[in-house]
Amino acid sequence: MGLDVEQIREDFPILKQEVRGKQIVYFDNAATSQRPIQVINAIKKYNEELNSNVHRGHHYLSKKSTELYEEAHEIVAKHINADSWQEIIFSLNTSYAVNLMAYPLVMRGLKEGRDKIVITEMEHHSNMLPWRNAAKIFGARVEYARVDKDGYIDVKRLINKLDEKTSVLAITHASNVTGIINPIENISKEAKKYGITVFADVAQSIPHLSIDVKKLGADFIVFSGHKMLGPLGIGVLYGKLEMLREIDPFIVGGGTIKDVTLESVMYDEPPYKFEAGTPNVSAAVGLMEAVKYLEKVGKDNIIQHERMLLMKARKGLSEVEKIKLYPKDLKSESTGTLAFNIDGANPHIVGSVLNDFYAIAVRTGLHCAHPYHYAIGANEGTIRASFYLYNTESEIEYFIRSMSEIVKKYF
Amino acid sequence: MGLDVEQIREDFPILKQEVRGKQIVYFDNAATSQRPIQVINAIKKYNEELNSNVHRGHHYLSKKSTELYEEAHEIVAKHINADSWQEIIFSLNTSYAVNLMAYPLVMRGLKEGRDKIVITEMEHHSNMLPWRNAAKIFGARVEYARVDKDGYIDVKRLINKLDEKTSVLAITHASNVTGIINPIENISKEAKKYGITVFADVAQSIPHLSIDVKKLGADFIVFSGHKMLGPLGIGVLYGKLEMLREIDPFIVGGGTIKDVTLESVMYDEPPYKFEAGTPNVSAAVGLMEAVKYLEKVGKDNIIQHERMLLMKARKGLSEVEKIKLYPKDLKSESTGTLAFNIDGANPHIVGSVLNDFYAIAVRTGLHCAHPYHYAIGANEGTIRASFYLYNTESEIEYFIRSMSEIVKKYF
Repeated sequence: MGLDVEQIREDFPILKQEVRGKQIVYFDNAATSQRPIQVINAIKKYNEELNSNVHRGHHYLSKKSTELYEEAHEIVAKHINADSWQEIIFSLNTSYAVNLMAYPLVMRGLKEGRDKIVITEMEHHSNMLPWRNAAKIFGARVEYARVDKDGYIDVKRLINKLDEKTSVLAITHASNVTGIINPIENISKEAKKYGITVFADVAQSIPHLSIDVKKLGADFIVFSGHKMLGPLGIGVLYGKLEMLREIDPFIVGGGTIKDVTLESVMYDEPPYKFEAGTPNVSAAVGLMEAVKYLEKVGKDNIIQHERMLLMKARKGLSEVEKIKLYPKDLKSESTGTLAFNIDGANPHIVGSVLNDFYAIAVRTGLHCAHPYHYAIGANEGTIRASFYLYNTESEIEYFIRSMSEIVKKYF
Repeated sequence: MGLDVEQIREDFPILKQEVRGKQIVYFDNAATSQRPIQVINAIKKYNEELNSNVHRGHHYLSKKSTELYEEAHEIVAKHINADSWQEIIFSLNTSYAVNLMAYPLVMRGLKEGRDKIVITEMEHHSNMLPWRNAAKIFGARVEYARVDKDGYIDVKRLINKLDEKTSVLAITHASNVTGIINPIENISKEAKKYGITVFADVAQSIPHLSIDVKKLGADFIVFSGHKMLGPLGIGVLYGKLEMLREIDPFIVGGGTIKDVTLESVMYDEPPYKFEAGTPNVSAAVGLMEAVKYLEKVGKDNIIQHERMLLMKARKGLSEVEKIKLYPKDLKSESTGTLAFNIDGANPHIVGSVLNDFYAIAVRTGLHCAHPYHYAIGANEGTIRASFYLYNTESEIEYFIRSMSEIVKKYF
């Protein structure tokens, strides 16, 4: 069936916001999506009626909060086809979710005689820097699976880098710059031959695509609530239960333990052992509501809608003089994310013009993926327009007209 | 002048909540305080009108979000008399804020030949376990400053533990169990003689007392928004700017860097280098509003009100048979937090009865401070009633009557 965009837009109050008298066109979804009123109200209701600390307090508010908090784990677990709510760990954002596990996994690898980490050059810094830092501190090697000039990973060369000395493969499911989707399913199978832990960043794919951890074959995945209609302040780490049970947490504190004496620590069961301190229950409640919203609309409808918008935008922009798309031709599946430049123009200036005169919100710069930009020859960065379920064909048409005008007028 | 409790209560919608037909009496403030409608609405407004990612995007929502986010740092910096907004780092909660800095500080100490960490036995696990874990991993020693049977730190013995081999003293400003306040000002002066980094947990004091980092003499302090009328999901780390500049971040990812190539990383200025990933802007906005609310009411008024409630509660409970207070007599300043037990009764059962029959919300158990409980001889935990600005004298009277009834009826 498809997707009723006009009805969906009614749920997003912010889309009526104006910038200098023009209604905003929000194309910065790969950075942060907007939240429907259902999510906003669920958070408000929680704050007004149930707010409390969790961890099985014996009073009404705390019990209710604990129930909701565990239900949020359950809903997220089902959404990605995990086996148990205990496999879902909440943290602050995707970067934090990677840090949570990068240090223990690098240490664990070294103990097993695996001193190599393989990272793709396509990674957002969040799935690159924690591994590099952990490797540097504990004495492991990092090798990179490079991309070609168009921004595609050479899968064969990546697979050739994997061996029995490799402890972890850190790989993104979709680029946050070009939207290119990597065939993680196949790569995971190869990695498994050597017993390598596959750590997949799905922050850019899960807002748009159905994610099934079993099909993906990843041991761990990470993503953020705020890119999938949920609130800021919640990142998710999924891990297989047996691995979560086996691994000691690194970020520790309140709530992670069964018992502590001055001499000993006994950690709690997952997810609690990995959720140090007072959790953000209100964000968990918001994320749960966001997942319900996405499931109601249907991921298949969302990606289909986005691809229609993307193709329309790619076609329109490719006909505008001086505009360069990354990649020029789409050779694989992708999310509704489009990176481009105007020949010779600083992307930040173009972004400012789009905002100031057209009320179009795009993101400009190196998008926390510096090595990837350097690899595709966009050293000053790119302009990134990223679409989502509430964007419309007429917004795309307006965007193309605006870009055409900008190129003519200023460049 | 004092504090108009009835007017304050109007700002807190949750206090009208009922449990089994009785209006809730909320005495679990040391775990999480409630939020005034001003904070709830600021968050809602942000979500509906300005929600966006920060990091100096070039579009309207992102610029506005960045401004608000930096303003929140500024407001918090002024609230604790810090020199610069750059000295304020936002994280998920207090536990996370400690982890952020514990690993780098332990490594830094070892490089300087300082292989000892001193931790007080009064600490919440959040300011204990990260240091212990970091020490274990990198090879430092941990020594404890013990408490006496009443739960007081022996300051002289603590000072005797400090020497030129000590890199960090981890100390709480106020106990989360007994409310006892430690004389950090004096202890810091002694620590400074040996060049020791003082890392103070003020999570339990800042909701109630004015905190001035200069007077306190601590190099780092940590606290949480959710215990001081702010939202869940935001913890604060304050550090002196020169130290933050010098130290490399440990939790890394998006937003922490100026540039990254496959070979090198150049970190950004504080606070950004320590704020990995998309920050929780909505929580920062909420915290800013909470700080403004607290400043308007006045911390002096708050602590005075709480002490009045505490003294009333202590007096009333001490006259009830079989009730044991921790400590029996208050020998120093404290926050409005009271730990007690009924002789021979499991605290969880008492907490459940208080909730189920009296709608009084207290916290029961070991309150993430196991070693402290073992030291004061409360191995099964305590019942903790913690008061705040919206609690009333008549709530205290009702609480005393209820406890008296419970002891008579059940124990």
